[in-house]
Amino acid sequence: MTGRIRNRELAAMVMDADAAASLIGSGDNVGMSGFTGAGYPKEVPGALAKRVAMAEARGEPMKVGLWTGASTAPELDGVLAEVEGVEMRLPYQSDPVTRAKINDGRMDYTDIHLSHVAQQVWQGVFGELDVAVVEVSGVTEDGRLIPSSSIGNNKTWLEQADRVILEVNSWQSEHLEGMHDVYYGTALPPNRVPVPITRTEDRIGVPYLECPVEKVIAVVPTEAPDRNSAFAPVDETAERIAAHVLDFFDVEVRGGRLPNELLPLQSGVGNVANAVLAGLRDAPFDGMTAYTEVIQDGMLDLLESGKLRMASATAFSLSSATVDRFNRNAGQFRDRILLRPQEISNHPEVVRRLGCLAMNGIVEADLYGNINSTHLMGSRIQNGIGGSGDFARNAHVSIFVTPSVAKGGAISAIVPMVSHVDHTEHDVDVIVTEQGLADLRGLSPRRRAELVIERCAHPDFRPMLRDYVGRAMESAFGKHTPHLLGEALSWHQRFVDTGTMRR
Amino acid sequence: MTGRIRNRELAAMVMDADAAASLIGSGDNVGMSGFTGAGYPKEVPGALAKRVAMAEARGEPMKVGLWTGASTAPELDGVLAEVEGVEMRLPYQSDPVTRAKINDGRMDYTDIHLSHVAQQVWQGVFGELDVAVVEVSGVTEDGRLIPSSSIGNNKTWLEQADRVILEVNSWQSEHLEGMHDVYYGTALPPNRVPVPITRTEDRIGVPYLECPVEKVIAVVPTEAPDRNSAFAPVDETAERIAAHVLDFFDVEVRGGRLPNELLPLQSGVGNVANAVLAGLRDAPFDGMTAYTEVIQDGMLDLLESGKLRMASATAFSLSSATVDRFNRNAGQFRDRILLRPQEISNHPEVVRRLGCLAMNGIVEADLYGNINSTHLMGSRIQNGIGGSGDFARNAHVSIFVTPSVAKGGAISAIVPMVSHVDHTEHDVDVIVTEQGLADLRGLSPRRRAELVIERCAHPDFRPMLRDYVGRAMESAFGKHTPHLLGEALSWHQRFVDTGTMRR
Repeated sequence: MTGRIRNRELAAMVMDADAAASLIGSGDNVGMSGFTGAGYPKEVPGALAKRVAMAEARGEPMKVGLWTGASTAPELDGVLAEVEGVEMRLPYQSDPVTRAKINDGRMDYTDIHLSHVAQQVWQGVFGELDVAVVEVSGVTEDGRLIPSSSIGNNKTWLEQADRVILEVNSWQSEHLEGMHDVYYGTALPPNRVPVPITRTEDRIGVPYLECPVEKVIAVVPTEAPDRNSAFAPVDETAERIAAHVLDFFDVEVRGGRLPNELLPLQSGVGNVANAVLAGLRDAPFDGMTAYTEVIQDGMLDLLESGKLRMASATAFSLSSATVDRFNRNAGQFRDRILLRPQEISNHPEVVRRLGCLAMNGIVEADLYGNINSTHLMGSRIQNGIGGSGDFARNAHVSIFVTPSVAKGGAISAIVPMVSHVDHTEHDVDVIVTEQGLADLRGLSPRRRAELVIERCAHPDFRPMLRDYVGRAMESAFGKHTPHLLGEALSWHQRFVDTGTMRR
Repeated sequence: MTGRIRNRELAAMVMDADAAASLIGSGDNVGMSGFTGAGYPKEVPGALAKRVAMAEARGEPMKVGLWTGASTAPELDGVLAEVEGVEMRLPYQSDPVTRAKINDGRMDYTDIHLSHVAQQVWQGVFGELDVAVVEVSGVTEDGRLIPSSSIGNNKTWLEQADRVILEVNSWQSEHLEGMHDVYYGTALPPNRVPVPITRTEDRIGVPYLECPVEKVIAVVPTEAPDRNSAFAPVDETAERIAAHVLDFFDVEVRGGRLPNELLPLQSGVGNVANAVLAGLRDAPFDGMTAYTEVIQDGMLDLLESGKLRMASATAFSLSSATVDRFNRNAGQFRDRILLRPQEISNHPEVVRRLGCLAMNGIVEADLYGNINSTHLMGSRIQNGIGGSGDFARNAHVSIFVTPSVAKGGAISAIVPMVSHVDHTEHDVDVIVTEQGLADLRGLSPRRRAELVIERCAHPDFRPMLRDYVGRAMESAFGKHTPHLLGEALSWHQRFVDTGTMRR
């Protein structure tokens, strides 16, 4: 264990998680590491949850503000939500207990773009950051921190927090050292300069996180693994969606609108994303790169195959099976993977400059090309917008993918009007379901509706959608974006009332 | 007149507008200059409209694709819409005839971000550009073009069009020469590099537009003035909105969140914008700059007062009274005004880097901070999103302003759910009405609703809004963003049915 903590001063601050958690006070804002289940602290959150429960039992309720990179794991979000220890959560979560508390109105949640978190914390939008709890994979002799399997907002937490608790995780591969690129050149305006990335592989920072040793109040060792939950396996629906996306890339390359090696890929996680990445192994595109948030199984396979030359992200999100393989062979990826802070991995300036091909999953799309990524039936938050807005808004081509139906066919992913908008008609280029692909670029809303119905909607729902548009064209208040206001959200209402959108 | 056309070859191509318009064919895509009623061609569009009408009379309908910088004037949009000569219009318009045709379903309109137009044309999203019709204020001896009172997409039109028609307008001030900054460093990915602007005043291009003389097929002289319609005068409502915005700036400066000279201002046009700018003349902020789309009356006043050090934009939009003053004295502004192509004036990279303070008008806002900038009652397009998305999405602080009611109190600008979303909850920082200001940064949707109702809604509508939220908190499908799906758009439906949102 001490092999991972090579700095004498920090080694002297080793304590157990309960002792460390006792240094966090009620009302503190706590910035924790963690992004898509990677690199989150494993020990202190559980100890903090115990403190919260004991305080509650004493009749002295204790809550903290909980800020992370993105989603974490049951050992962090789950345990703290269970004891209702979180006053305000941001910026992205995917934990079932947290989600339930938010949707019961028992926890506040602020759903902001992942690229905006750091700058808004620097602006002071959320108040002072009191404590940082950051997992690292080691500490060098001179006290620099070797980041873990995600970087997320750690640079900002370490700089902004008054007090720092480090978890040093010896489960993480030692080969992670050197794989990170932490950029210390950001600033608030008027002091900003260009982010000097012009190609995916550009290194612009240093491989270590910096933290003045005098801010560190505890060092907690751990050997616990990342969450690494298995993704849903690739099924036929995912494969069909992937095939449409690959066809699209092919057409764009042949039409001279994309280069042969494509442009840097950004891909959400999940089985559709993995299916697209699997398809790219056999596609005629060589020398590809990924400028993305997360390196999931399919991305690692693509790197191993040699088709993907380079991947830049802020975190891993690997299945249990793949993570063991990665940890054994991490050294071989060191020159081909860069993990950066999330304000750089998702930076609108860089995403726009590189011209990312953005592929993100959604909850639902509407006839006119608006996208809901976050809410079920308009009110219930699912996970959050994550980085999808950072990429979609600035991508060269912004692609959204979804199966055409959910809940065994009870829910249509194509609806008359989305019940919540996360990506507006102005930011959506292409919608893909297993039924087909609708390229909405350059089309007026009415033309988009024709394509979305005929290409993307499930055949069972097409007649209802055609009927809606037909009647809207007759009697809507305007025919630019024809809607029947009394019916626009009726599919969602019917689902809430009857359990299905079908009539 | 020939004094403005100092190049021999181009002088030899002078012809009248009818002759020039005869060189435009049915089905052509035509890129015309023009941005907020400035710098649009005055002669050729009318001649083209005559051709369209005559073709229609012969039973040979003629239509063109019409692309501009932004809004133009009756002599361009109006005449062409009147004869239904436009197949597809983009990217922004504010013409009543055009608007009526679009909302009658007789014209297609694609409403895209102003910063996206150039790159999407380069990508080929809208097909080939056949003809450019561009107003310039003069031609140098060696054939360089002196831009007019707007730049907009002219660089792209001149580069991408097969054939070019120039209108040389001697009404425009000769002092415009040297005021423009045309950047020729843009590219499609993977060849993009940073846009080298780090301060509002940075000159990165040249003062002239380039166009190979062999592409020019006609040169049409004109002396017609820009539209220069008068803005609605500043009224008490606008002054109260402005006062809230100025208070906000003051609080932010005192809190150390904004520097004393503020950050570069972006301001939409109209009487509220002019009221804010008027208020800034007496505010304690010196050495301000504006990085914006449009220089309107208030901006010019602020420049003259000395409080505004520098303004960068892509167009003027002055009232008739002010434009005469400007044309007489344009020389004195030459070092303090830069007009750039709209892909630079609105570039997300630059807007983010400079940290613009974005102030834009809206149609309506909802309880949870979503903004509708474009549609009346969900279906009827008003003007378009313009640059509001370019700025709001990337601004340091994104402020939206509106009177709390419209149509004599029949319409509330604060509604349960907006009927169309142009700016999502993730991109909206501050909402201001004459009632007050709601700073939504860092708040969960439910907290935002409290503020929006109590600070921004008109008192007449507050009880209805409180009632809606109260019942939604009881029975919504989720309590993160509590909505009653059957009622969410009922205010708009009631307006359509009864002419008022009031019960």
